Amino acid sequence: MRYEILKLLKEAGSDYVTGVDIGTRFGISRSAVWKHINELRSEGYEIESAPNLGYRLLSGSGRLNPFEIMNGLGTRTAGCEVVWFDEITSTNTHAAKLAAEGCSEGMTVVAGMQTHGKGRLGRSWESPAGKGIYMSVLLKPDVEPYETPVLTLAAAVAVSDAIKEATGLDTGIKWPNDLVIDGKKVCGILFEMMSEADRVSNVILGIGINYSQEPEDFPAELKDRAISLKTASEKGAVPPCTTPGSMPEFSRLSVIRAVLKQLDIVVRMVINGRTDEVLAIWKDKSVTLGREVSFTLKGVQYSGVATDITGDGKLLVECSDGVRRELLSGEVSVRGIYGYA
Amino acid sequence: MRYEILKLLKEAGSDYVTGVDIGTRFGISRSAVWKHINELRSEGYEIESAPNLGYRLLSGSGRLNPFEIMNGLGTRTAGCEVVWFDEITSTNTHAAKLAAEGCSEGMTVVAGMQTHGKGRLGRSWESPAGKGIYMSVLLKPDVEPYETPVLTLAAAVAVSDAIKEATGLDTGIKWPNDLVIDGKKVCGILFEMMSEADRVSNVILGIGINYSQEPEDFPAELKDRAISLKTASEKGAVPPCTTPGSMPEFSRLSVIRAVLKQLDIVVRMVINGRTDEVLAIWKDKSVTLGREVSFTLKGVQYSGVATDITGDGKLLVECSDGVRRELLSGEVSVRGIYGYA
Repeated sequence: MRYEILKLLKEAGSDYVTGVDIGTRFGISRSAVWKHINELRSEGYEIESAPNLGYRLLSGSGRLNPFEIMNGLGTRTAGCEVVWFDEITSTNTHAAKLAAEGCSEGMTVVAGMQTHGKGRLGRSWESPAGKGIYMSVLLKPDVEPYETPVLTLAAAVAVSDAIKEATGLDTGIKWPNDLVIDGKKVCGILFEMMSEADRVSNVILGIGINYSQEPEDFPAELKDRAISLKTASEKGAVPPCTTPGSMPEFSRLSVIRAVLKQLDIVVRMVINGRTDEVLAIWKDKSVTLGREVSFTLKGVQYSGVATDITGDGKLLVECSDGVRRELLSGEVSVRGIYGYA
Repeated sequence: MRYEILKLLKEAGSDYVTGVDIGTRFGISRSAVWKHINELRSEGYEIESAPNLGYRLLSGSGRLNPFEIMNGLGTRTAGCEVVWFDEITSTNTHAAKLAAEGCSEGMTVVAGMQTHGKGRLGRSWESPAGKGIYMSVLLKPDVEPYETPVLTLAAAVAVSDAIKEATGLDTGIKWPNDLVIDGKKVCGILFEMMSEADRVSNVILGIGINYSQEPEDFPAELKDRAISLKTASEKGAVPPCTTPGSMPEFSRLSVIRAVLKQLDIVVRMVINGRTDEVLAIWKDKSVTLGREVSFTLKGVQYSGVATDITGDGKLLVECSDGVRRELLSGEVSVRGIYGYA
């Protein structure tokens, strides 16, 4: 209810809305209106109350909340429902639980910090409070399991586009779906799915973005391999990631909203058979193709040059032993990235 | 604690165990012993208490409970932990939630009835109270997603072997994993998995067995397509599914325990690379190979003869249009089964 009132105040812009009008609109008493206004204030919204004039919204909240994420988002599925946690074990784990309970497609879990953030291949994801963006989006795309590798590449395209939209920063994609600036990781995507033998029921995209970490905020082993949007934008090669005077949280909000919007667009392209276009953008953003890579397959280490992505999302590598190998996933080191010299 | 006491009484056989001995063994007072004994009685265990002699177990419980399922099971994973519900939405859904929370491999969910039992391909599974066996087993096999179709066939082999062990009944396997007696379905298996692109994190095997339904217990549309173990055994062609004087529940228990034991054996065979042996047993039990089948692929209906199973678990069909097709999953009608004449 309080967010309904907030919406009304937002729509009124610099005009006042009287307590009587609000009460009549929602069929509640003036003291109930007062209670909701105070709840909004305690969430950080600055609301003026003037005798005989009513209420007026002075400034947005510094806080992220489902209302600000969803308000006017205009997506078909991603972000159609949003839950926020100050702290959670893992947004992917929680999304999996909601999926098991049969929640709607587009359900999005966002958290201020994760105590057991999950990375790819069973790894953990550093998730300190307030420094990163930790979100998971549940999708129910009508695809077969063998089509999902393309979706995982599409997710990288979407988040890269979103970061560009919200911050002006260009990111490269390291196969399959890391986002990279200056050879350092700025975003990781964990693609998980639940399926029967040939029927995908749920896809969960976990997205972790390094947002405002200073270089010294990263643990020692990540220091040379990770970078935040804040650090990247301060380098000056790109527009600043926060508009003057805005709260950093506002910008976190804009990144989250952009991610949901771009995911909505790009995933729909894949479902509608426009995979080639998505893969073309992926290749354009790639910092993997044409480079020297090394990887391990069943205990044997190989190196070679990554030459292309197949139509079903595999990485083609011309190996130094003369054999062309296709990689479906796993770990690939790319020369020039994450300190692989 | 009460199951620890129960175990002690079981081990004592026809001997008495004194309340003092029990109290000393577990460091609890005689009145606490008395409380636990009464809890066991309320669960249906008949326990004699004789002055100066102590307690003696007269008969097992008619009730299913985790203790009876797990006691002395001897499996490596399946059934290492068991939770029981009188009623649940779906054992697979609950297992998925436990999986998301990071439960141990082998976790088994058993229920007396399901309000939203799940079948293959998004269908529902009729789950009336006390008539069927509804269980889900969580496994974390070290396999890649493309290897999972074999696991789904292996599960059918395991449950078929289990039914044979517990009831003496022979069941045929309709591809991929229905169990069939006299052309009617006696068991369905829902294979669900959670995975990253090339890494299976959890497999959930949902097993629904028609146990004691009379023909008239099935809804009209299933009447000619379903059969229970009870009806099948009463036909006399096989040993009775309950030993004389035993409770039907005891036999439900023996089927559940046999399923866990056989799953443990067969899944380990697959993981250890003995897939060929498992597929050979599957073929031996098959009521699909050599028969006329029909199926729909991308809206087109085909018919032909099922000739073989590939090494990775696909069904080979020599279609009437002269083309050999491989099926990964989906629905296949087999002539002579489920009323397909």
